[in-house]
Amino acid sequence: MSISNVIFAASHGVGRDDLFLRAHEISASFTERAAELDRDGLPPLPEIVRLKNTGLLNALHSPEIGGGGLDWVDALRLVRIIARGESSLGQLLGYHFVNSQYIYWALKDQARAHALGVDTVSRNLYWGAAVNPRDPGLELTPRGNGFVLNGRKSFSTAARVSDYINANALLDGKIASFAVPTDRPGYVANNDWDNIGQRLSDSGSVEFRDFPVYEEDFFAAPDEAPPVLATFNTPLIQLVFVNFYLGAAEGALAAAVDYVRTTTRPWITSGVERASDDPYILERVGEFTASLKASAALADSAAATVQAALSRGHNVTARERGEAAAEAYAAKVNATHVSLDITSRVFELTGARSTASKYGFDRFWRNVRTHTLHDPVFYKAKEVGEFVLNGKIPEVSLYS
Amino acid sequence: MSISNVIFAASHGVGRDDLFLRAHEISASFTERAAELDRDGLPPLPEIVRLKNTGLLNALHSPEIGGGGLDWVDALRLVRIIARGESSLGQLLGYHFVNSQYIYWALKDQARAHALGVDTVSRNLYWGAAVNPRDPGLELTPRGNGFVLNGRKSFSTAARVSDYINANALLDGKIASFAVPTDRPGYVANNDWDNIGQRLSDSGSVEFRDFPVYEEDFFAAPDEAPPVLATFNTPLIQLVFVNFYLGAAEGALAAAVDYVRTTTRPWITSGVERASDDPYILERVGEFTASLKASAALADSAAATVQAALSRGHNVTARERGEAAAEAYAAKVNATHVSLDITSRVFELTGARSTASKYGFDRFWRNVRTHTLHDPVFYKAKEVGEFVLNGKIPEVSLYS
Amino acid sequence: MSISNVIFAASHGVGRDDLFLRAHEISASFTERAAELDRDGLPPLPEIVRLKNTGLLNALHSPEIGGGGLDWVDALRLVRIIARGESSLGQLLGYHFVNSQYIYWALKDQARAHALGVDTVSRNLYWGAAVNPRDPGLELTPRGNGFVLNGRKSFSTAARVSDYINANALLDGKIASFAVPTDRPGYVANNDWDNIGQRLSDSGSVEFRDFPVYEEDFFAAPDEAPPVLATFNTPLIQLVFVNFYLGAAEGALAAAVDYVRTTTRPWITSGVERASDDPYILERVGEFTASLKASAALADSAAATVQAALSRGHNVTARERGEAAAEAYAAKVNATHVSLDITSRVFELTGARSTASKYGFDRFWRNVRTHTLHDPVFYKAKEVGEFVLNGKIPEVSLYS
Amino acid sequence: MSISNVIFAASHGVGRDDLFLRAHEISASFTERAAELDRDGLPPLPEIVRLKNTGLLNALHSPEIGGGGLDWVDALRLVRIIARGESSLGQLLGYHFVNSQYIYWALKDQARAHALGVDTVSRNLYWGAAVNPRDPGLELTPRGNGFVLNGRKSFSTAARVSDYINANALLDGKIASFAVPTDRPGYVANNDWDNIGQRLSDSGSVEFRDFPVYEEDFFAAPDEAPPVLATFNTPLIQLVFVNFYLGAAEGALAAAVDYVRTTTRPWITSGVERASDDPYILERVGEFTASLKASAALADSAAATVQAALSRGHNVTARERGEAAAEAYAAKVNATHVSLDITSRVFELTGARSTASKYGFDRFWRNVRTHTLHDPVFYKAKEVGEFVLNGKIPEVSLYS
Repeated sequence: MSISNVIFAASHGVGRDDLFLRAHEISASFTERAAELDRDGLPPLPEIVRLKNTGLLNALHSPEIGGGGLDWVDALRLVRIIARGESSLGQLLGYHFVNSQYIYWALKDQARAHALGVDTVSRNLYWGAAVNPRDPGLELTPRGNGFVLNGRKSFSTAARVSDYINANALLDGKIASFAVPTDRPGYVANNDWDNIGQRLSDSGSVEFRDFPVYEEDFFAAPDEAPPVLATFNTPLIQLVFVNFYLGAAEGALAAAVDYVRTTTRPWITSGVERASDDPYILERVGEFTASLKASAALADSAAATVQAALSRGHNVTARERGEAAAEAYAAKVNATHVSLDITSRVFELTGARSTASKYGFDRFWRNVRTHTLHDPVFYKAKEVGEFVLNGKIPEVSLYS
Repeated sequence: MSISNVIFAASHGVGRDDLFLRAHEISASFTERAAELDRDGLPPLPEIVRLKNTGLLNALHSPEIGGGGLDWVDALRLVRIIARGESSLGQLLGYHFVNSQYIYWALKDQARAHALGVDTVSRNLYWGAAVNPRDPGLELTPRGNGFVLNGRKSFSTAARVSDYINANALLDGKIASFAVPTDRPGYVANNDWDNIGQRLSDSGSVEFRDFPVYEEDFFAAPDEAPPVLATFNTPLIQLVFVNFYLGAAEGALAAAVDYVRTTTRPWITSGVERASDDPYILERVGEFTASLKASAALADSAAATVQAALSRGHNVTARERGEAAAEAYAAKVNATHVSLDITSRVFELTGARSTASKYGFDRFWRNVRTHTLHDPVFYKAKEVGEFVLNGKIPEVSLYS
Repeated sequence: MSISNVIFAASHGVGRDDLFLRAHEISASFTERAAELDRDGLPPLPEIVRLKNTGLLNALHSPEIGGGGLDWVDALRLVRIIARGESSLGQLLGYHFVNSQYIYWALKDQARAHALGVDTVSRNLYWGAAVNPRDPGLELTPRGNGFVLNGRKSFSTAARVSDYINANALLDGKIASFAVPTDRPGYVANNDWDNIGQRLSDSGSVEFRDFPVYEEDFFAAPDEAPPVLATFNTPLIQLVFVNFYLGAAEGALAAAVDYVRTTTRPWITSGVERASDDPYILERVGEFTASLKASAALADSAAATVQAALSRGHNVTARERGEAAAEAYAAKVNATHVSLDITSRVFELTGARSTASKYGFDRFWRNVRTHTLHDPVFYKAKEVGEFVLNGKIPEVSLYS
Repeated sequence: MSISNVIFAASHGVGRDDLFLRAHEISASFTERAAELDRDGLPPLPEIVRLKNTGLLNALHSPEIGGGGLDWVDALRLVRIIARGESSLGQLLGYHFVNSQYIYWALKDQARAHALGVDTVSRNLYWGAAVNPRDPGLELTPRGNGFVLNGRKSFSTAARVSDYINANALLDGKIASFAVPTDRPGYVANNDWDNIGQRLSDSGSVEFRDFPVYEEDFFAAPDEAPPVLATFNTPLIQLVFVNFYLGAAEGALAAAVDYVRTTTRPWITSGVERASDDPYILERVGEFTASLKASAALADSAAATVQAALSRGHNVTARERGEAAAEAYAAKVNATHVSLDITSRVFELTGARSTASKYGFDRFWRNVRTHTLHDPVFYKAKEVGEFVLNGKIPEVSLYS
C-alpha cells in the first residue's frame, strides 16, 4: 500500500528558495497534464511520489531532522503554488502538512512525537487522516496486548496514498485519537471517490477490518481533552482550503490569459485586432487579478496570525486560538467567493471555442465548487460575524 | 440520415394547453435521464423523435396546415420548459423553431414557403442550419441544371438530427441563401462535438461534398438584400438562448430544491432538524427564485415585443426590428448573468455530497457556461447601451 | 389641515391613456425640482395638490363614481412613473392607492364603503394610515356616544397631507380598525420626519388627543377577524414599494444618461471623443437597463397575479392570497437589489463632477436605501424560500 | 491664511507606537463629531490643527529632523485609521504625506529639499497641491527678479488649509513645477467645494493673482523630464485613496456594529431576542469583515511593494515603478468595490430607524462614492489587465 519505499528521501538540505523553485517547476508540469489527470480521476500515486522527490512534504519539519524549516506562511504558499497546477495535489500537500504536524501538537509524549517526525522525514512518509466528523465513528475493541479497529469512514482524503494516518475511534464510549501506519493488515482504501471535482484527491471511503492499534499509537488517554495546540488543526486545514482554492483560481486565470494571448479571436465588433487588446477582456483580467491578489494577501496575513499564535506553543490560550481562527475563517469566506467567481468567469475571456472538452477548463470551477462545500460558507461567515459583533470565538470542532 | 420517417406526424389537432402539458411531461422524463445523457453526449436522435411525437416541433405553424398555431411568446416558453429537463433539447427545439419559420420570412416565393411549411408539418421535419458566421463560408459552383455545394462548417447545431437546413454559401463572390433537405447525397455530419456543456446539442461540424443545390432552393437572388422580416432570426434565436438558459437554471433550482427536501442533512450548528428549515438555505432559495422570475418575466415581455413587430409582416421597419431586438438583447444580458449565478450556486443549497458524479448536478452550469459564450455578453450589453444612450439600433448580423 | 378643498375634482372622465400622459408630464416636472425638494424635505402639500388635479388619486376607483377604472397593474405603473420624477411622491401616490381601496376590502358595511368611495372621488381626498405595526398602539376609550382616540404613532407616512386615514387602536384589549377624516379635532401631525431619504414622504409622527371616533367609522366589530380580501393591503403595499424603488432607479438612470450625453467628459485614456461612446459606459448602461427591465417585468407580472386573486373578491382564499403574495415578495426582493445597485452605480457613468451638491444625484440612492429597510430583505427572501421549498405561504401581517 | 503658527511642533520624539496610539485617539474623537462635521462641510481648520498637534503630519520625515521615521506602509495605515473617524481628514492626511514627500523625489537640489523638510517639520507645515491634471493650466510670467503666477484650479484639495503647495504652470509653453508657501500675496482659496461627499476635504477652487514665484521654488528646469522617483506620487496618492476608502468602510462597519449592539431591534419573525443574534445580520457582518480584511491586506502588501521600489531611490527604474504601480492599482480596484458595497449595505444591519438624519450614516457611502470617481475604476482595472495580459506597465500620469 505504501509508496514511500520507492523514492529517495529528497528533502535533506533543501533550502527555502529551492523548495519554492521546485514547487513552481512541479506545478508547471502538473498544469500540462491536469486536464488528462482530471478526466482519469485516479488516486495520484505517481504525482505524490514526485512531490516526495522534491522534498516538499517535509517543508515544515525542522532542519535538524532533515526538514525544510519553513513556517506555515510559506508552507501554505507552497500549497497555493502546487494548486495552480492541479488543485487536488495542492489539497493533498496541504492535508499532509496538517496531518503530519499534528503529532507535535497532540501527542502527550513529545519523545514519541520526535521519533515519529524523524521517521516521517527520513522515510518521506505521506500523512493522511480518517476523521470525517459527520460520519458515524470507528470502533476500537481490546484484543491481545492491544486493540483492533473496525468500521468505515467515507470521504477519507488521501486514503490510498497515505503512509500514516491520524484517526479517531470510540473506545468504551470514549473518543480515542491515535496515529498509525497504513501498512498494517486490515486497512482497505476503497478507491470509490467519483465526484465532479478534486477528482485526484483520493477522497474515497476507507475501511478498517480488525486493524491492530497499540497503546503507543494513542495521542493521549481516551477522552482526555486535547491541548489547545492540538485544536490548531482546524484553522490550519481551513487555510489549506483557502490556499488551494486560490491556487485553483490563479491557475484558471493563468490558463485563460495564456489562451487569450494565443488562441482567442477578437470579437467581430470589437474594433481590435487581437483579443488581448479588447477593452472588456482587459478590464476583466484586471478585476480578477485585483480580487485574487486581495484574497491571497488575506490568506497570507491570516497564516501569519495563526503562525504567531501557534508559535506560543502550549502557552497559547483558547482565546488566542479563537482570534487567530476567526482571521483564518474570514480568509476562507473571501477565498470561497473569489475562487468560485473567477473559475466560472474566466470563460468570458477565452470565449466559445475554449469550451472544447480537450482543454478541460471547466475543471477549475468543478474543483473549487466541489471542495468549497466542505462546510457551508454562510456558517463560516456567521462565525466571523459572531466574533466581530459579539466577541464570541468560534466553537472548537473539526469544522471550526 | 433523416429520422422523420420513423414517426407519426403527431401535431395535428393538438391545442395550446395540450402542447404545454406534453412539454411538461416530456421535460420531466428528460430530467430523469439528463445526467446519463450528458455523460454520453450523443446526438439525441431518440429524443428528437420523442419531441416530434409530441407535436411540439410544429407548434408555431398555422393550424390550417396542422400546426399548433402558437405565437412566439408561447413557443419560447415551450423551449424553457423543455430546457428544464435537458437544456440541449431546449436548444434544439428553439433552433428548429427559428430555422423552420425562417422560410416564411426570407423566401421571396411565398407559395414555395407555404409548400415547404406543409411538407414540414406533414412529415414532421426537423430544421437546422449551416450558417456559423465566424466560419469561412461554403461555396456553390454550377453543375448541370443546378449547383453543387462544397465546404465545411464547424459548430453546426443539430447537424446530425436535421431533416432540412438553411444555409449560406458563396456563389460568384456573392452570398446565396437557400434551404435544402439533408438527405441529398454529400451531406456529412461529422459528429465531432465534444464540449463541456450542451453535450446533446449535436453541434459538430458538417461537410458538403458536391451536395446538389437547385434554383428553387434559393430564398432570393444571390446578394439580394434580405427583407427586414428575414432579420428577425437573430433576435428570435437570441430569445431561444434566453429561454433555454433560464430553463436550465430553473431545472437546476428544481433539482436542488428536490435534493434539499430529500437528501441534504442539516448543518451541525444550524439548530434545525431539516435542511429545508435552514435560514440560509431558505434565503438563497428565495433569492434565486426572485432572480429567475424577474429574468423570465423579461424573457416573456421581450418575446411579446418581438412578436408584435414580427406580426407587422413585411410592413415592419428596420427601426422597429431594432427596437424589438434591443429588448431581446437586454433579456439576453440578464438571463446570462442569472443563469450562470444560479447554476453555480445551487450547490450551496445541496451541500458537499451533492457533488457526487452520479447526480451530474454540474451539468447545469456546464450547459449554461458553454452556450452563454456564443457571443460575448459584454458586447450584447454594449449594444443595449448604444440603444439607450445613443438611440442606435443594433447593427443587423447573425449575432445581432 | 385638509388640502382637498383648494382643488378641483379633476378625475371625472379621465381615461387610461390620459392618466398615463398626465403621470408622465407631472413626473417630468417633478424631476426638474427634485433636487431642491429633497434638500427642503417638507411635506409636499403643493405636489399632492398637483397630483389631485391630474385625477391620478382616483385612478383605481370605478368610472361609475368618477374614478379612472384602472386595475392594479396600471395603478402600480403610475406609481413607478411618478417615482421616476420624485420617489417620495411615488410612494405617497401608492400609499394612497392602498389606503383608499382598503375600505372596499375591509368594511363589512358595503354601502358605507360605497359612500366613502363616492366622497373620496368627489372631494378628491388623500388617504393615509396610522398603522405602523412595530409601534405601541393607540387607545380608544368610550366617551359620549362614541369614543376618543389617544396616543402616538411614529413614522406615519403622509401624516400631514392625509384627508382621511385608516387606523388601528386598542379598545378593551381588542384591536379595532376604523377610517376617519383628519379634520376632526385632536389630530396632530408633528412634521418631524428628518431622514436621509424619501424626505418628502411626510413620514413623521402623529398624535391623537381626544380625537373623536364613532361607531360608524369601524370596519367591523373589534377583534373580528378581517376577511382575506382585507389582507391584500400587504402584498399591494409591497408592490407599491417595488414600483417606487424601480421608478427611483429608472429616474437615476435617466438622469445619468442625460448627464452623460450633455456633460460628462470622455476619459483621457478612453480614445473616444464623447463620453457616450465610451465602451465601459455603454456596457454599464446596457447592464443597468437589462436589470431594470427584468425587475420591472416581474413587478408587472406580480401585479397581474395579485390583481387576478383580488378580482375573486370575497371568494379569494387565504392560500390564493398567499401564493399571490409570494409572487409580490419575490418582486420585492429583486427590486431591492436592483434599485440599490443602480442608484449607487450610475455615478460610474456620470463621473467625478456629477457629485456636486447642486445636482443632488445622491438622492436616488438615499431614497431607495431608506425605504428598502422598511422590512429586511433577507426575511422577504426567506418567505419566498419557504413558499418554494416548503410550500408555506407567508404568514399574514402588516409586513407580509 | 496659514494655521501653522498657532500650534506647537508636536512631533519631536514621537515614536511609532505613540503615533498609532494618537491616530486611534484622534480618529475616535472625529467619529463622535463626524455627522455634524459632514453637515457643516467646512474646511477643517481646527481638525488640521489637531492633526498637527499629534505629530502625525511628520510621520514620514526622518527622525534626524524630528520626524516619525515611519515608512509608507505605516503612513498609509495611519491614513486608514484617521479615515475611520472621518474620511476627509484621512484624505487630507494622505495628500499631505504625498505632497510633503514629493520635494525629496522631485527637487534636483537636495540641499534645498532638506531645508524644506526641516522647515516643514519644525513649523509643522501642511502641504497641498495645485495640480488637477484635467484643468487648463496656470501660467507663469516673468516679473522683476522672478515670476508671477496667474490662473485658476478647480478641485484643489486642501486649498484652504495648506501652508505650502506643489504646483504646475506653463512658462514659455513649457511646464514648470515648483513648491511655494501659500502665505505669499495673491493666493485665493475660494472655499467653494460643495459636493455630496468628502465634504471636509476642502477641495474647492484656488486662484492665483500675480502670485510671486522665484527661481529657487522650481523643482527643476522647466520641461526637464522628472526623475522616475518623482513619478511615485501617483501610485502613492492612489494608495492614499485606497486607504481612506477602506478606512471609511471600516468606520461604517464599526458604526453599524455598534448600532446593532445597542439600538437595532430584532426582527419580528427572527425568533431571536437581540438583533445581534440574528443569523442574517451575523452572516453579513462576517461577509463584510472578510471583504474588508482582504482589501486591507492587499492595501498593505501593495504599500510594501511600492515602498520597496521607492527605497531604491534614484536607482529605481521606470519598469520597477510600473510593476509596483500595477500592484497599487489592483488594490485601488478592489478597495473601490469593497468600500462602495459595504458603505451601502451596512444599513441592512442597522435597519430602518438608522436612516434618521441625526446619525448621518449615509455619509460613509457619500464619501466613498464621491472620491472613488476621481478616475474611473474601469480604466484602472484595464491598466491592471494590460499589465497582466500584455506586460504593459501603466503609462505615467497624474492618474497612473
